[in-house]
Amino acid sequence: MKVLALLGSTRENGNSEYLANKIVEGTDHTLVKLADLHIEPIVDKRHAEGGFTMVDDDYEQVVRHMLSHDIFIFATPLYWYGMSGPMKDFFDRWSQYLRDERFNLKEELARKKAYVVITGGASAKVKGLPLVQQFQYIFDFVGMEFADYIIGSGVKPGEVKEDSLALAMAEQWNKLFS
Amino acid sequence: MKVLALLGSTRENGNSEYLANKIVEGTDHTLVKLADLHIEPIVDKRHAEGGFTMVDDDYEQVVRHMLSHDIFIFATPLYWYGMSGPMKDFFDRWSQYLRDERFNLKEELARKKAYVVITGGASAKVKGLPLVQQFQYIFDFVGMEFADYIIGSGVKPGEVKEDSLALAMAEQWNKLFS
Amino acid sequence: MKVLALLGSTRENGNSEYLANKIVEGTDHTLVKLADLHIEPIVDKRHAEGGFTMVDDDYEQVVRHMLSHDIFIFATPLYWYGMSGPMKDFFDRWSQYLRDERFNLKEELARKKAYVVITGGASAKVKGLPLVQQFQYIFDFVGMEFADYIIGSGVKPGEVKEDSLALAMAEQWNKLFS
Amino acid sequence: MKVLALLGSTRENGNSEYLANKIVEGTDHTLVKLADLHIEPIVDKRHAEGGFTMVDDDYEQVVRHMLSHDIFIFATPLYWYGMSGPMKDFFDRWSQYLRDERFNLKEELARKKAYVVITGGASAKVKGLPLVQQFQYIFDFVGMEFADYIIGSGVKPGEVKEDSLALAMAEQWNKLFS
Repeated sequence: MKVLALLGSTRENGNSEYLANKIVEGTDHTLVKLADLHIEPIVDKRHAEGGFTMVDDDYEQVVRHMLSHDIFIFATPLYWYGMSGPMKDFFDRWSQYLRDERFNLKEELARKKAYVVITGGASAKVKGLPLVQQFQYIFDFVGMEFADYIIGSGVKPGEVKEDSLALAMAEQWNKLFS
Repeated sequence: MKVLALLGSTRENGNSEYLANKIVEGTDHTLVKLADLHIEPIVDKRHAEGGFTMVDDDYEQVVRHMLSHDIFIFATPLYWYGMSGPMKDFFDRWSQYLRDERFNLKEELARKKAYVVITGGASAKVKGLPLVQQFQYIFDFVGMEFADYIIGSGVKPGEVKEDSLALAMAEQWNKLFS
Repeated sequence: MKVLALLGSTRENGNSEYLANKIVEGTDHTLVKLADLHIEPIVDKRHAEGGFTMVDDDYEQVVRHMLSHDIFIFATPLYWYGMSGPMKDFFDRWSQYLRDERFNLKEELARKKAYVVITGGASAKVKGLPLVQQFQYIFDFVGMEFADYIIGSGVKPGEVKEDSLALAMAEQWNKLFS
Repeated sequence: MKVLALLGSTRENGNSEYLANKIVEGTDHTLVKLADLHIEPIVDKRHAEGGFTMVDDDYEQVVRHMLSHDIFIFATPLYWYGMSGPMKDFFDRWSQYLRDERFNLKEELARKKAYVVITGGASAKVKGLPLVQQFQYIFDFVGMEFADYIIGSGVKPGEVKEDSLALAMAEQWNKLFS
C-alpha cells in the first residue's frame, strides 16, 4: 500500500502539512508539495478542435505518482473557504489528463482511496463543509472512494498540535496505512 | 454605477463569459478575463516575519479595478465543482492585498455588491451549491453584499443560449446596472 | 402525466402554496396539504423484532397518491432552514412504507420525477441550499430524478407574487405538465 | 453549568441517545426525549391577526428547560438526511415562543452554547453536512454559539460503540461539562 500525500499549502511547516506528515510517517509514501512544482492552470480545450495541447510543466510527474500509489491524502489549508489555488489548478488539469491516451487515468483513479485533510481557524469545522462536499463530488466523478476527512484547527504554524482530536485521527489513519 | 466583471473561464467564448457579456452590455463596465493576466498563486506569508513580499505581476491592476467599481460580477464555469483555478488564485491573493497599506481594500470591498454567475452541466444546479456557499462565506468575510446568483446550464460553448431562465436573470440584472 | 403536489405549509394561502397552485393549474393533478392530514411521526422500528407497527392515520392515502402520480411537487416554506415539520414527518415515514410488502413503494418512487419549491425571505436563496442538498440525497436514495427546484422570495402571504423569476419558472413547469 | 440534552430519536437505546448519555453522565443535566412528549407541529400564525394561539401540549415544559440550562446538546439520528421529525417540530415551534411575551426566549437563547450529535451510516459524515449547516443557520439566527458537533457512525442500536473517535469526542465534551 503506497500513500501519496498531495499538499496544497503555500508556506513552510503549515498545519495541513504537519498533519499530513503525521499521517504518512513510517509508511511507504511520497509527499508532493504542489506549490513547489511548476503546474500551469488548465486551458480548457475540451471542445476545441484538436483537443488539449501538451503543456511543458511538472504535471506528468504528478500523474505518474497518482498511477503508482494506492491511497491519496489531499491536505490543504482552507484558503477563502476552498482548497488552495495550487491544489485547484492540480484538479483542473485532471480534465486534460483524463483525456490523454498515454495514461489510463480515469480507470486508475477509480481504484484509489481518498483521504482529505483541511486546516483552518475555529470556523473551519462549519465553513470548510462546502469544500468537503466539493471533494465528494470530485471523487464521485472519477469513482474514487472518499474514505474519511479531518478538519483540523490551526492558523498560525504549529497550532494544530493543540487539536488533540485531529491528531488522534491522523494517528488512526497512520496505523491503517502502515 | 460601474460594473466590474471578473471572468474565470480559460477558454474563448464560453458560457459564463456569454452570460457576463449579456449582463454588462450597455452598462458602464470593465471586463477582466483573469486567465489573460499574469496572476501568481499566493505565497502565504500571513505569519512570516516581514509579511508578504511584493509580487511583480498584474494583480495590482485588478486591485485598482476593484477599488474603482461598485458592482462585481464573478463569472466562472464550474470546474471540478468549484471556481476555476485562475479565479481561485485571484481570491487567494486577497489575503495579501487586504494587508497592503497602500490600499484600503478591506473597507472598500465592504461597499461593493457581488453577483455570481456559474455555468456547468445539468447537475450544476445542485453540485454547484457548495460553490455558492463558498462565495457567501467569502463575501461575509469582507462584508460585501451577496446580491444574487445565476447557475446557468451550458457545457459546450454557446449552450447556455438555450437556458431561457438564466438569460432572463441576466437581462434583469442588466436593467439594474444600466 | 399526473402531478402530485405535496404542500408542507402550515398556514392558509402561503407563498409556497401559491407557487404550487400556479404550477399545477390546468394540469391533471392532486394537491395534498400535509398539515391537514393526520400523519404521525415515525416510530423507528427498522431494527425492532417484528418490524414496524401499523399506524392508524392518513398516511396510506398519501402512499396511494404517490403510487398513482408521475410528477411530485414538494412545496415547503423554509422553516428554520429546513422543510416544515409536517413534511419531515411525511418523509420519515417513508422508512416504514418502503418496507411494507403491500406496496412496491421503493421501485415505484424510482419512476417518479421530483420538483421542489422552497419559499422564504431574501436569505433563502443561500440559506435554503442545505435543504436543496438534502432533497438531492433523499431522491438519490430512492432513485427518483430531481428535475429542478425554485427558491422563491416571500415571507408574508402573497409576497412571492413580486418574484417574477419564481413565477416564470412556475409557468415554465406548468407548461411541461400540461 | 447545567446541560440540557434534547434527543430526537424515536426508538429506544439508539446511537444518538447512547452518545448523548456518554456526554452528560456525571454532569448536572436534564435529558428530554422529544418523541416521548406531546409536541404539536407549528401552526404558522406569524402574520395572522391575533398571532399565535396557545397550544395545550408539553412545549412550555421544554421552554422552561431551555431557560434554566446553559449548554444544549441536540442529539438526533440522521433521518432522511435531516434531523428527525420530532426534533424539527421542536424547532418549528420556536417561531411561536420567540414571540411569546411571557418568556424572554430569544435573548436567553443567545446566552446558550450548542453542541450537536448526529448519528447515521458511513455516508453520514458527508451526507449529514447539510444538517450541520442547517444547525449553524438556526444558531446564528438566535445568536447561540455553535460550539462543536460529532457525526457518529451507527445504524443498528449500539453500533456507535465501535466509533472510537465519536466516543473520544463525547468524553472530551463530558469533561468540559463536568
